[in-house]
Amino acid sequence: MRGATNKILNLSEDERKNGVVTHSSGNYAQAVALASKKLGIKAYIVMPKNAPQVKKDGVKSYGGIIIECEPTIEAREMTAKAIQDEKEVTFVHPYNDMDVILGNATAGKELLEKNNDLNCIISPIGGGGLISGIILSSISFGNNCYVIGSEPFNVDDAYKSLQEGYIVKNNLGSDTIADGLKTNLGDITFNIIKENVKEIIRVTEEEIIDSMKLIWERMKIIVEPSSAVTLASVLKYKEKFKNKKVGLIISGGNVDLNNLPWIK
Amino acid sequence: MRGATNKILNLSEDERKNGVVTHSSGNYAQAVALASKKLGIKAYIVMPKNAPQVKKDGVKSYGGIIIECEPTIEAREMTAKAIQDEKEVTFVHPYNDMDVILGNATAGKELLEKNNDLNCIISPIGGGGLISGIILSSISFGNNCYVIGSEPFNVDDAYKSLQEGYIVKNNLGSDTIADGLKTNLGDITFNIIKENVKEIIRVTEEEIIDSMKLIWERMKIIVEPSSAVTLASVLKYKEKFKNKKVGLIISGGNVDLNNLPWIK
Repeated sequence: MRGATNKILNLSEDERKNGVVTHSSGNYAQAVALASKKLGIKAYIVMPKNAPQVKKDGVKSYGGIIIECEPTIEAREMTAKAIQDEKEVTFVHPYNDMDVILGNATAGKELLEKNNDLNCIISPIGGGGLISGIILSSISFGNNCYVIGSEPFNVDDAYKSLQEGYIVKNNLGSDTIADGLKTNLGDITFNIIKENVKEIIRVTEEEIIDSMKLIWERMKIIVEPSSAVTLASVLKYKEKFKNKKVGLIISGGNVDLNNLPWIK
Repeated sequence: MRGATNKILNLSEDERKNGVVTHSSGNYAQAVALASKKLGIKAYIVMPKNAPQVKKDGVKSYGGIIIECEPTIEAREMTAKAIQDEKEVTFVHPYNDMDVILGNATAGKELLEKNNDLNCIISPIGGGGLISGIILSSISFGNNCYVIGSEPFNVDDAYKSLQEGYIVKNNLGSDTIADGLKTNLGDITFNIIKENVKEIIRVTEEEIIDSMKLIWERMKIIVEPSSAVTLASVLKYKEKFKNKKVGLIISGGNVDLNNLPWIK
């Protein structure tokens, strides 16, 4: 929501005129729809046709215009490009964009303003837009506060990219319950991350589910699996974080309540 | 938590000395345990032996000492009385107590301080401790703000008590998914409610479940069925609340995440 809002606020009058288009099946789709609605501009959202009904309902309730496509990255990108050309609207990328990253950075800024003694912040890594914002705010507002990334073993493209020194993509068909983190890094986000991230911690599907359930039970907030990787990382390496003051980024609550991972 | 804290803060040194005891299977048990822990006093919690493990775990994690009993009101009360005599501790009632009611009243006070133009506040009614607090704060801090109570059809003792003019108890064995609202009114709470409540709205089990799910989905907070009766009341009588500014009391998130009512 922060990234989408900042991106759309920074479009020129001309860019906004006919509306915007993005492709996303998750939070960014709803965020673009809502941010556009508030600014009175049209939002076309390309979603895979197998996206959960609850996500489609969310986008619709915020006034987004849904265009369905086949559930592949290529189909998404092609469909978004076609809309962009046909409707003469502006494409807004979900993460590989400095305005989106700077919008996301406000989360880290607010966290550090309230807790200026944090030793470390852990953020999920999917496309890298959120953690890039957190890194920039930790540099500007932190007091020697380092940033750790967190991702599922099943889609550990960021971990591998840092090892190799170039962007490694996830294998086609790789799957994880943390569906918001399946995305590959972009060139802008990779450059920010590789220079500034201290470490990337990988967690298992079971660790993600256990952490998600713990957050639901004790914090009483509904978070999606992609959000729970950060707590899972701390619980996995308790010693590493002993006596440290650690901030966790928890963002996103898209969950199908009829289909919870701990209920067989 | 507000009621338990205020009650325990208002105990004398002598009353606090050996600790406190209460009987509850739900939020009040955890609240008394936590409030006591913070003040460094012992809390004995009498719980029915069939209480869900998640609730027992909550009480234990806050340092409460659990004493199990048979799952009847009589067994609870007798066991609490026995502990009170044996350990020389102070019994704290969950709702029929002015200190508990005044603690609960702070919820209404805060709501009205932030929204001084509310026409109405809807509160759940179980034992009546929460709504009694809301009534007192609406009188002191509201601007012609009336209070409506909300309860399940299945345990509509408050509705019937107001009709009859004396405390009507729920039939033995009456059941509802809103388990926090099964309690009968006490003499203190009944007297406050009968003089000041505008109306009591009754809702069905299905309406409670639908409202609870809607709150989870859109507000991303975990509320228990007993909390959801207030939203269910508004959705049931939309016309009644048209053009009114309505405050809803939502309190309590004790839910067994392995057993959700909308999953068959």
